[in-house]
Amino acid sequence: MDRISLSLGSGGKLMREFLRTLILRHLGNPCLDGLADSAHLEIRGRVGFTTDSFVIQPIFFPGGDIGRLAVAGTVNDLVVSGIKPLYLSLSLILEEGFPVSDLKKVLSSVREAAAEAGVMVVTGDTKVVRRGEADGLYINTAGVGQVVAEPGGIEGGDVIILTGSVGDHSVAVMVARREFEFEGEMESDCRPLHGLLPLWQMGVKWMRDITRGGLATILCECAEGGDVPVFVEEARVPLSAPVRAISEILGLDPLYLASEGKAVVIAPRDRAEGIVDFLRSLPAGKSSAVIGRIGGHERKGEVVLKSISGGLRLLEPLTGELLPRIC
Amino acid sequence: MDRISLSLGSGGKLMREFLRTLILRHLGNPCLDGLADSAHLEIRGRVGFTTDSFVIQPIFFPGGDIGRLAVAGTVNDLVVSGIKPLYLSLSLILEEGFPVSDLKKVLSSVREAAAEAGVMVVTGDTKVVRRGEADGLYINTAGVGQVVAEPGGIEGGDVIILTGSVGDHSVAVMVARREFEFEGEMESDCRPLHGLLPLWQMGVKWMRDITRGGLATILCECAEGGDVPVFVEEARVPLSAPVRAISEILGLDPLYLASEGKAVVIAPRDRAEGIVDFLRSLPAGKSSAVIGRIGGHERKGEVVLKSISGGLRLLEPLTGELLPRIC
Repeated sequence: MDRISLSLGSGGKLMREFLRTLILRHLGNPCLDGLADSAHLEIRGRVGFTTDSFVIQPIFFPGGDIGRLAVAGTVNDLVVSGIKPLYLSLSLILEEGFPVSDLKKVLSSVREAAAEAGVMVVTGDTKVVRRGEADGLYINTAGVGQVVAEPGGIEGGDVIILTGSVGDHSVAVMVARREFEFEGEMESDCRPLHGLLPLWQMGVKWMRDITRGGLATILCECAEGGDVPVFVEEARVPLSAPVRAISEILGLDPLYLASEGKAVVIAPRDRAEGIVDFLRSLPAGKSSAVIGRIGGHERKGEVVLKSISGGLRLLEPLTGELLPRIC
Repeated sequence: MDRISLSLGSGGKLMREFLRTLILRHLGNPCLDGLADSAHLEIRGRVGFTTDSFVIQPIFFPGGDIGRLAVAGTVNDLVVSGIKPLYLSLSLILEEGFPVSDLKKVLSSVREAAAEAGVMVVTGDTKVVRRGEADGLYINTAGVGQVVAEPGGIEGGDVIILTGSVGDHSVAVMVARREFEFEGEMESDCRPLHGLLPLWQMGVKWMRDITRGGLATILCECAEGGDVPVFVEEARVPLSAPVRAISEILGLDPLYLASEGKAVVIAPRDRAEGIVDFLRSLPAGKSSAVIGRIGGHERKGEVVLKSISGGLRLLEPLTGELLPRIC
């Protein structure tokens, strides 16, 4: 079989063959091998649960693909919510005619990213739609894990830490879409952030991974959700050289570009140094930096940015469309 | 907003408005209202986990819609696996231009079916793709719950019970697609089967809901998975009058048609009467019947059907395509 056929989706013999020869060969484990309707799992204490669908286009991009992204995205939603990621589901919506060789590459990426993050794919589903009813492959991953912390309690004086440069994912996808000529090296930062879990034992109060909407939107959600004022300094936000260059050339604001392996971390001021040191020891946090603080001005729910030129301006969440199908 | 716009998918202000005015208005609860990345849940003992994507076409059909189907499908996968359904995730992939009025109807159905089944939608995700990159609306629901039984241990002499007529869902979808002229009443059997949970305390060893592939495919999976011989009598399989008529006219075998609210139940012979009595007391099991037994012939892994005419034939799992996008 070179290409996905519609008949595979009917749930009979061909589906079983597909599951055995493709899915189990890449992702097989004692839980998945029985091809049962559901998995039975051991999870101590409270259970964390999340879901994400991935419609990124193109499915392969510098630094990753839709498989790695699907694992990282769901793992990261758990980690930033105070949950140790343990198990994933994997649900595929395939367009008739999708190349099986591409699916194998995506499944290999799922396997590698899951191994990297220490999670196991334990249940799944596959649907096939006719040509023109999807664009290649859409993936949903849901994730469950063990609750290790209850985020919350942001207050004036807390510091805002960014775990690294922002915008790399957006720019890598634009490169993959050939939206402009680009000669240099540019990779998405797409990665699972399981390495951030110990932060919950280091006094961190709140975390959020930066995806659609970018850093600015996350900061607005923090200010609004925590009903606190947020103050950040643009000059302290790390940017990779390509993101800086391409943003300038195209007139994009990197604060609104998507990342897929970065998080905003809020902690008490006296813990900040230890947290930044720890983050910089991780592959996922080499360029971590304090970028701002809670309570630097008066209006609760607002985000004030001190721009590079020194002026102050209010940051708004992203409005309208920036890059469709970025994740 | 009359139609889903692409900019809604960018994760900013419009997405928040969409979540507040549409999703939370229909599905809001203390867990979902925070719009956090993940939910924290209390689940006692072992945790059950499953996922399903739904690509049914058309999304509205007699007896249900994609919203009711998504809740029922995931609830049923949990129930038949010995898991009490507790919490669902809901992930939407929307095509640009999809009518918001249709989405409201679907979300109402999700709410009603979830209330019926006693489950809560606690986490979710929404993606938007351009026109022509999906067909209206695809839904993924993952589900978690409490493990209440470990299925298994099928042996010779056990009886096979069917909880009602088969094929109603397939025929209802064909009616909705206007694949033939049909004057009578025909509804999908799409429903959550949470009412079957007490069966696990009544000696039931194995259950499977009948979806794609139909009764025949499920029986083959039972024979193969349990490494047992399966014997069923066609005359005992309940069929609704429309399914019987339409199957005859179109030359379809109802044993391969999809249901979305029926299950195969395997139990020791001495429990069968009590189980059938219990099932017939449920709205979901009025036409329950014993349709066969384990170990009626010699070859393990095979399903032998005694046809209405009295002859014996081997049942194979569905091969090839019957009805694409039936669920």
